[in-house]
Amino acid sequence: MIEDNTKPPSPLRILSTSSESQARRAVVTTRHGTIQTPVFMPVGTQATVKAITPDNLKDIGAEVILGNTYHLFVRPGHRLIEQFGGLHGFMNWDRSILTDSGGFQIFSLKDLATITEEGAAFRSHLDGSRLFLSPEDAVAVQEALGSDIMMCLDTCIPYPADRAETVAATALTGRWARRCRAAQSRPDRLLFGIVQGGMFADLRRQSADTMVEIGFDGYAIGGLSVGEEKATMYEMTEVTTDCLPFDYPRYLMGVGTPEDLVEGVWRGVDMFDCVMPTRNARNGTLFTSTGKLILKNARYRDDPLPVDETCTCYTCRHYSRAYLRHLFVSREILAYHLNTIHNIHYYVNLMRRIREAIVDDRLAAFRNDFYGRLAAE
Amino acid sequence: MIEDNTKPPSPLRILSTSSESQARRAVVTTRHGTIQTPVFMPVGTQATVKAITPDNLKDIGAEVILGNTYHLFVRPGHRLIEQFGGLHGFMNWDRSILTDSGGFQIFSLKDLATITEEGAAFRSHLDGSRLFLSPEDAVAVQEALGSDIMMCLDTCIPYPADRAETVAATALTGRWARRCRAAQSRPDRLLFGIVQGGMFADLRRQSADTMVEIGFDGYAIGGLSVGEEKATMYEMTEVTTDCLPFDYPRYLMGVGTPEDLVEGVWRGVDMFDCVMPTRNARNGTLFTSTGKLILKNARYRDDPLPVDETCTCYTCRHYSRAYLRHLFVSREILAYHLNTIHNIHYYVNLMRRIREAIVDDRLAAFRNDFYGRLAAE
Repeated sequence: MIEDNTKPPSPLRILSTSSESQARRAVVTTRHGTIQTPVFMPVGTQATVKAITPDNLKDIGAEVILGNTYHLFVRPGHRLIEQFGGLHGFMNWDRSILTDSGGFQIFSLKDLATITEEGAAFRSHLDGSRLFLSPEDAVAVQEALGSDIMMCLDTCIPYPADRAETVAATALTGRWARRCRAAQSRPDRLLFGIVQGGMFADLRRQSADTMVEIGFDGYAIGGLSVGEEKATMYEMTEVTTDCLPFDYPRYLMGVGTPEDLVEGVWRGVDMFDCVMPTRNARNGTLFTSTGKLILKNARYRDDPLPVDETCTCYTCRHYSRAYLRHLFVSREILAYHLNTIHNIHYYVNLMRRIREAIVDDRLAAFRNDFYGRLAAE
Repeated sequence: MIEDNTKPPSPLRILSTSSESQARRAVVTTRHGTIQTPVFMPVGTQATVKAITPDNLKDIGAEVILGNTYHLFVRPGHRLIEQFGGLHGFMNWDRSILTDSGGFQIFSLKDLATITEEGAAFRSHLDGSRLFLSPEDAVAVQEALGSDIMMCLDTCIPYPADRAETVAATALTGRWARRCRAAQSRPDRLLFGIVQGGMFADLRRQSADTMVEIGFDGYAIGGLSVGEEKATMYEMTEVTTDCLPFDYPRYLMGVGTPEDLVEGVWRGVDMFDCVMPTRNARNGTLFTSTGKLILKNARYRDDPLPVDETCTCYTCRHYSRAYLRHLFVSREILAYHLNTIHNIHYYVNLMRRIREAIVDDRLAAFRNDFYGRLAAE
């Protein structure tokens, strides 16, 4: 087999680096525009970031959102979405979209999925129908969805997993990555390889080397935040970013808490996604500069303050904790809408402040201040 | 007892009348601005019009919303809301608010309520706690809520009800109305009397005469749309408006379908409220110029058209039936948000078109065209 050794041009342009850490301030360019990094990507599983509109996302300043290939493949189907101009046309979002490959969701189905060399056989969580996704299918589905940043189909393993199982899964992920790269038919889209390797540093390095050798537009770090200790997650992140080419985007998948974002950036990660801000919003847990605020607590019953006095989001500019608590305990739909706006704003604004700190080369001070405020509460 | 025979000045200014019907095009002025009538008032039961923001309501053109005194009295309590500058401050709405008196909701509790001369004893639907509301309390609660247009506490009867029961309830409503008028302490708020009388034309006339004799800022027609035939509802509406002073606002409570609004305006009604547009939105039933559209129907699965091609609402400008159907069958919160925007826009826009037809004195033609389009589907 003759390898094409020409590496794709990187979509990343680095603007500033941190002298104190591995952090970088950069811009990723897709066919739908630019993304200022480090960036948090709100999750829009079913062609909607739950409870808010694309206009709300733009007001907040989100430049890229994530769609879940598995969910959209199952319902309403990628061919239907393709008819509507892809996800962008279907859901009325004209900025960038990153899609996952479906691998993680299929893995989450557990008993409903079977992994073979060829691909993943699984049953729909909606109606139990038998479905199959090969690496080639995963790329074709993401191309039909009109994704700007596509992910290779990867195999995910439970945590903890022993070395033998991890070796096998990581090797299969590598073979699938090569098939995904070969299957790509739309060169205007970006395709990221996913580094696996479980909690074994040497397997992470091997996996990173494999992905870099294949050559992708960016590199994701998969298989973390699956139950391991925080220290392990940070160590595996660092082991991986150390092996990745400096000038390509790095994406830590499914992570995480605000603290995780700060630590990921410190270790050289550019992109993050997580359901935490949107899911917590619907559970009445709001992020603030001094920690989490649990709306249902009786102490907020007649509290006239906004959720966070330092916050400039739509919700904090217009509503009191007392009103938001009333909506939440009354199970009013507006609660989910306003809470989601606040939590996504918190994450997007945190990343904006991190970017400013990198540009000013004061990320260490920012990080100390960030933890100091959380501890003060 | 010495009666004060000075009638309050009417908040209604009539701009045009219909030569073909009893319809009037007018403006009602409250301390929060003007309301173009005939008007539909979206229902905001628990200090929120379900699933949308006050900014969404303003974009749609709503000038007045309704709050439910019973619900707000039970949770979070009128004293808490008063601390936040009333409902306006609490929910961030700076246009007019009409509140009901709580009578209808207490009546709806059935076994949980006992009516005496003094007032209504009832149990909270939330925790079963014992509560009491006298006519004086109903006014005090509405004043604390900061309502612009308050309603007298009335007694509601089941349908059908016999003459004796109707006579007794209507008489009690009259005595309570007098107590409400006497209890009003804020002359900057408007207070409406409620005409009852069940399905008996002579009792309706008696009740209207009583209310007019007491003298209110406007007159509501209560106790309709409770299960009677449409013809009966329209007849009772007409019997009542015939007895009411020409130059005061008339409000048909809890009504109704788009057809009911057209028929109510025809018979001289100025104001309407109903949960139908908001509730139907959450059930996936959308109003269009050619009738109702049931989103879950499979025929809309890949339909690229907006809900109504003649509609200019935010939802119709940005989304296809296929996308809205996907959101609805996926139980996404955004479905309730976008559907509610459309349905309220439909109602508000219908009233705008009715007002234009009155000004141009072509309401009969408008009404024929309105029914013609519905029949064409």
